[in-house]
Amino acid sequence: MLILGVDPGTAITGYGLVEQQGQRLTAHDYGVIRTQAGCPLSERLKQIYDRITALIQEYQPDVLVVEELFFNKNTRTALAVGQARGVILLAAAVQGLTVAEYTPLQVKMAVVGYGRAEKKQVQEMVRLLLRLKTLPKPDDAADALAIAICFAHSWCRAGLLMGGKG
Amino acid sequence: MLILGVDPGTAITGYGLVEQQGQRLTAHDYGVIRTQAGCPLSERLKQIYDRITALIQEYQPDVLVVEELFFNKNTRTALAVGQARGVILLAAAVQGLTVAEYTPLQVKMAVVGYGRAEKKQVQEMVRLLLRLKTLPKPDDAADALAIAICFAHSWCRAGLLMGGKG
Repeated sequence: MLILGVDPGTAITGYGLVEQQGQRLTAHDYGVIRTQAGCPLSERLKQIYDRITALIQEYQPDVLVVEELFFNKNTRTALAVGQARGVILLAAAVQGLTVAEYTPLQVKMAVVGYGRAEKKQVQEMVRLLLRLKTLPKPDDAADALAIAICFAHSWCRAGLLMGGKG
Repeated sequence: MLILGVDPGTAITGYGLVEQQGQRLTAHDYGVIRTQAGCPLSERLKQIYDRITALIQEYQPDVLVVEELFFNKNTRTALAVGQARGVILLAAAVQGLTVAEYTPLQVKMAVVGYGRAEKKQVQEMVRLLLRLKTLPKPDDAADALAIAICFAHSWCRAGLLMGGKG
């Protein structure tokens, strides 16, 4: 099972491709899509859409996973993230890819086993679980890998519940 | 000049096509794109994207106009509207269409001449300016027409400022 985790943002979108084989998780690719502040917003969204589409076509993942977002502070940020998230979900729908969503709490629980874990603890667990030599950089790529790992663990559990597979 | 005004929303997106010939404004088409609450979000976004793309291809407008949004209350709404707005701006970029944005204040000023105008006053002015027999329904379609009219008026003014055309 190949999982594409995505952390949406207009300026910087993180992505991480994680393969799950039994209990073993491997990072196939991870990084960020950066768009230029000077470009028109519609062009920046197109860059994100095109890049996510290219990743889906290249790696043929089984699922795209994003965080279910809750903002309690900045509505401008929510709007900006929403726009990026919209074109990412669209890319999945156009490519016929299943989408899964998890809350930040679920991601932390799945990766660290503790819902109030610090960002650095999550990154360190991502590094350990994927057997990477260094912390995945930048933060947005690490977040995307964490979301993918969350799906791997939840899928595993769901598989076990549904009859021992996983 | 043919103007496509859009009022984004995940459940309901309004659109209005306004033609400007000199001082004369004509509504070519207006309505709403409704998506079903039961559908996966990515599918709903694809429905909006496909329908906006079809409108652009059918009418070949010169510009797509959306409101520049500021939310001060609900971040969940901002995220939801942002997602719909993202795929609409993407449709414009993919079709090579220019995008213009106006604040709600600018729309009210352009349509009613008064920035604190009530929704009903805006709708009545939309009806008068487009010589419609009844108020355009539903509200989302009327809002989309108002945004298109705002562009027509501003473009007019910009034209005058830039040398008397418009």
